[in-house]
Amino acid sequence: MAEHDAVEVILAKRDRAELTDSQIDWVVAGYTRGDVADEQMSALAMAILLNGMTRREISRWTAAMIASGERMDFSGLSRPTADKHSTGGVGDKITLPLAPLVAACGVSVPQLSGRGLGHTGGTLDKLEAIPGWRADLTNEAMLAQLEDVGAVICAAGAGLAPADKKLYALRDVTGTVEAIPLIASSIMSKKIAEGTGALVLDVKVGSGAFMKDVATARELAETMVALGTDAGVATTALLTDMSTPLGLTAGNGLEVAESVDVLAGGGPADVVELTVALAREMLSGAGVEDVDPADRLADGSAMDAWRRMITAQGGDPDAAMPTARETTTVKAERDGVLTRLDAMAVGLAAWRLGAGRARKEDPVQAAAGVVMHAKPGDTVTEGQDLLTLHTDEPARFDRALEALAGGVEVAADGSSFTPQALVIDRIGG
Amino acid sequence: MAEHDAVEVILAKRDRAELTDSQIDWVVAGYTRGDVADEQMSALAMAILLNGMTRREISRWTAAMIASGERMDFSGLSRPTADKHSTGGVGDKITLPLAPLVAACGVSVPQLSGRGLGHTGGTLDKLEAIPGWRADLTNEAMLAQLEDVGAVICAAGAGLAPADKKLYALRDVTGTVEAIPLIASSIMSKKIAEGTGALVLDVKVGSGAFMKDVATARELAETMVALGTDAGVATTALLTDMSTPLGLTAGNGLEVAESVDVLAGGGPADVVELTVALAREMLSGAGVEDVDPADRLADGSAMDAWRRMITAQGGDPDAAMPTARETTTVKAERDGVLTRLDAMAVGLAAWRLGAGRARKEDPVQAAAGVVMHAKPGDTVTEGQDLLTLHTDEPARFDRALEALAGGVEVAADGSSFTPQALVIDRIGG
Repeated sequence: MAEHDAVEVILAKRDRAELTDSQIDWVVAGYTRGDVADEQMSALAMAILLNGMTRREISRWTAAMIASGERMDFSGLSRPTADKHSTGGVGDKITLPLAPLVAACGVSVPQLSGRGLGHTGGTLDKLEAIPGWRADLTNEAMLAQLEDVGAVICAAGAGLAPADKKLYALRDVTGTVEAIPLIASSIMSKKIAEGTGALVLDVKVGSGAFMKDVATARELAETMVALGTDAGVATTALLTDMSTPLGLTAGNGLEVAESVDVLAGGGPADVVELTVALAREMLSGAGVEDVDPADRLADGSAMDAWRRMITAQGGDPDAAMPTARETTTVKAERDGVLTRLDAMAVGLAAWRLGAGRARKEDPVQAAAGVVMHAKPGDTVTEGQDLLTLHTDEPARFDRALEALAGGVEVAADGSSFTPQALVIDRIGG
Repeated sequence: MAEHDAVEVILAKRDRAELTDSQIDWVVAGYTRGDVADEQMSALAMAILLNGMTRREISRWTAAMIASGERMDFSGLSRPTADKHSTGGVGDKITLPLAPLVAACGVSVPQLSGRGLGHTGGTLDKLEAIPGWRADLTNEAMLAQLEDVGAVICAAGAGLAPADKKLYALRDVTGTVEAIPLIASSIMSKKIAEGTGALVLDVKVGSGAFMKDVATARELAETMVALGTDAGVATTALLTDMSTPLGLTAGNGLEVAESVDVLAGGGPADVVELTVALAREMLSGAGVEDVDPADRLADGSAMDAWRRMITAQGGDPDAAMPTARETTTVKAERDGVLTRLDAMAVGLAAWRLGAGRARKEDPVQAAAGVVMHAKPGDTVTEGQDLLTLHTDEPARFDRALEALAGGVEVAADGSSFTPQALVIDRIGG
């Protein structure tokens, strides 16, 4: 590898030059090794955030992050593989019904997930509400479960894209998270290194999402689809609405129960709609065109796959979800139409009730969260329950209720309410 | 002091907000204490470099850097004080004749200087070519010498603007040196903390200077003059040419000898011109209008002050300067006019001959450097010496000669040569 100098690379990006392949390879490898210091990488990250990167630079940066660690290989499996990544939202439990549903359709799902930080929950936090369920698997156990059950949701090992792990922690404390080149390369380096054959990206837009406007979300989606495609992964993206929470629950155990409702053929319409839409993308990317995932929900085979998947990782699929010690309700103050149920407000409330963590090392409550009794557009009557707040620590109610202030609106006249399509657009393929 | 968060401050500047006084005070003090990490300050410095700062932000940032350490106080001296700061150039020995000249005019000069890094020499490196001379003085010794001799050139103590020392070292390795708000606040925080009553800034422009164009140099000069004026220091600036070296020498001992020539009433015309011009600014800032510094050069009183200043710091003003072991010459290849003698080329050659250092801990050679036998515009004849290169290590000649390639041009016809005024403009006052 050619020798470079950290200051040379920083100056190039600072002064709006396009970084060379050699500069990118050197700086990513050097940072992973520790030859490029944190204070140098953070200055470079800020320059990237403010001055941008070309598609070629982002592609090379992603490749360099993949090259910093191991790559998994699913080519020995008897079925094709497909995975999903969501940029994160409130009540976004879609991975839970989606992975077994796609497995039931004949495509293996190797879902490496994370824990939550902030107002959006983490998939592993949700599944850990199930008694006995374990997130940590060896690569061998993961492969065996993929072949045997067809779906696995587990923690990513430390060996995948270590440059990304180090850089992500740095960006978090240096105000350099919101850079599309860095977000896209972070997500895609892990997904490409993971070795999935097909990938669908659920890029969320709205108050509860990382991306607040459609234009920025579209730019991120297009960047990631191009990166996946260039790396030989069949990649598409859906832009989906996150102005209001998905489904009727936000919280770990609460979302597991709702996911089981969906797998049983019921559940909220929006969760079913998005689960099926994402499943169709994954199946199409994996080359399986003749199976309708809606049928597999209806015939119980998705539920069977769920039970096998949970059991294989030590969980009891028949165990009841834990119940919170305390609840309180938010009621409608008038007759009318629920015109606003803001995703960020609900996410923040669930977080403050104990469903999320402020620091990596914090625990989460399995039973804490928010249950919604109406969705935007629904007619409500004065005194009716709109939300039930769940927590083991009632001292948390006050700040959770504060978070909801202004986030829930009932209008006497619903004429000002415009329904928002759940799937806003589709990118790629 | 109000509590802030480093990421909050970084995000504000990243997103082009104006930082509040409270944010600036907190982040500078926090960085000095170590509560704001290097990787956070470097991200902030890059955001400042790319997004800029208002005059108010720069002024507050400077005040916060001053508040990070001690302030000196010269109000007990019997004479007013004035100081000079140069942004650095090749052959820039002006401080050496200037400080004793101004002292001879009745104004005390408290000159805190540094050592050189890169192609421009440091004032302390030059004076250390004088046998016995010491740069390190206690504050008490400095004050006593200012009262007794009227001029002192010494190393800045660690107590002045420690935030600047830490930030300067960080900027050097993170590609964030070239930010006018950070350059201006770095220079001015030290000069204001030093306690001088008046200040003249010699802002150099051209190939051998930090600022390559007049517009940028003017912006820096105006920013610094405003900072000084706001802090109650009578501040002016001269924009001066640095496309060709000052005087006929670049190198530590060589420049001391040339400075002594000026103090003896001789020396190159450009060094005399700039020394007198800067002295007039300092005297005017200090409120002394009735003395002409040119007279004090002519009557020997500036030389007397020089001898007392050197003696007070242990130096022997009668000692001969060290002589280099080896020399080589560059000769004119044709009859004609010297149309180009590039400051950066000569500075780089002197550096490579051993006059400068690449790393802070490197030693410098007292005798190494370049002697020029002609200046741009001079008529030369084929075979005539143009430059003499001096070093103790002849292995250095090759790379020094390489540095000069393209930097020295003799044209048969001098009609293409346009003389450049030494003092380009004056700012302030």
